Amino acid sequence: MNYCSHCGSEVEHKIPPGDNRLRYVCPHCELIHYQNPRIIAGCIAEHENQVLLCTRAIEPRHGLWTLPAGFMENNETTQQAACRETYEEASAKLTDIQLFCTYSIPHISQVYMMYRGQLVDGFSAPGEESLATQLFTEEQIPWDKMAFPVVTESLKLYFSDKNAGKFHIHGGEMSRDEEQQLTVLNYPVIS
Amino acid sequence: MNYCSHCGSEVEHKIPPGDNRLRYVCPHCELIHYQNPRIIAGCIAEHENQVLLCTRAIEPRHGLWTLPAGFMENNETTQQAACRETYEEASAKLTDIQLFCTYSIPHISQVYMMYRGQLVDGFSAPGEESLATQLFTEEQIPWDKMAFPVVTESLKLYFSDKNAGKFHIHGGEMSRDEEQQLTVLNYPVIS
Repeated sequence: MNYCSHCGSEVEHKIPPGDNRLRYVCPHCELIHYQNPRIIAGCIAEHENQVLLCTRAIEPRHGLWTLPAGFMENNETTQQAACRETYEEASAKLTDIQLFCTYSIPHISQVYMMYRGQLVDGFSAPGEESLATQLFTEEQIPWDKMAFPVVTESLKLYFSDKNAGKFHIHGGEMSRDEEQQLTVLNYPVIS
Repeated sequence: MNYCSHCGSEVEHKIPPGDNRLRYVCPHCELIHYQNPRIIAGCIAEHENQVLLCTRAIEPRHGLWTLPAGFMENNETTQQAACRETYEEASAKLTDIQLFCTYSIPHISQVYMMYRGQLVDGFSAPGEESLATQLFTEEQIPWDKMAFPVVTESLKLYFSDKNAGKFHIHGGEMSRDEEQQLTVLNYPVIS
């Protein structure tokens, strides 16, 4: 950020009075430009012992498999965001959706909220951001071709719960160290 | 938003190619300025059959009671945000925190993530944004002096679960119609 989006003046990067963090502050109109994490909402869509995956038609991770998910927009609920993304990326409609897991990814300031829902009529077709959509059983999941660790982790939790016969709501966080090594921390499940 | 925060040019308000929503777009550097909902993280801090509330020292709702909560910052997890806000507003430390409820409030593009945790040593003291902190049993809660509907609703769910002897993770949404009448929708609980 270089300029104030309100008045166009050059912003300063400083800690405002009464605050303890560096912010972009406009010296002219005095507006403080807060920056906050973004929510990514998505869904594990179930149909007859299978789940729906899409191959990405866009970067990053073009051609790899993912769960339908994307940035939540203003003026919608997290459930609406998960359903909208599933429709946009996989032309798929959902019923009976409920929260399945949340992951914080602080080094990129993202919070994932992944839902679980029933795929209506088992129907899907690639949207603009997908090359293909396909239903997979656990044995068929292309684990070595997944786009993002959060997708792999969400699916591992999902099949673990499914095989145990009871779904929980999971929480966790992911971080990368200086060598870009990923650490996944799954919080204890509340039973 | 009037100016591009990157190059300082006047932005246009239009639907970018391949998109379906109005965005602020810079005609000079072509940056699209996405705007997304913000997360508010907070906590119901428990101590010996009581919960911790604060009176707000700031607007809006100056002088009314609230749960410690505030905007999640970049580069933290939702749990860290809930703990940080509880410490900033009530000088209170938490252990054993776990997600309790999430509420989407689409008309103001906010998502609440409220945790439940144990208040260390039962200690609290007002931070800069609070006039007072106090522990309350259910019977003592000042229901008619609460700052925000989401605080009232979270506490109602909390005491309902507590009295039933089992805590669940809840989800819901709140909206206001044109007459500013509030509607609260609590999603079915997954048992």
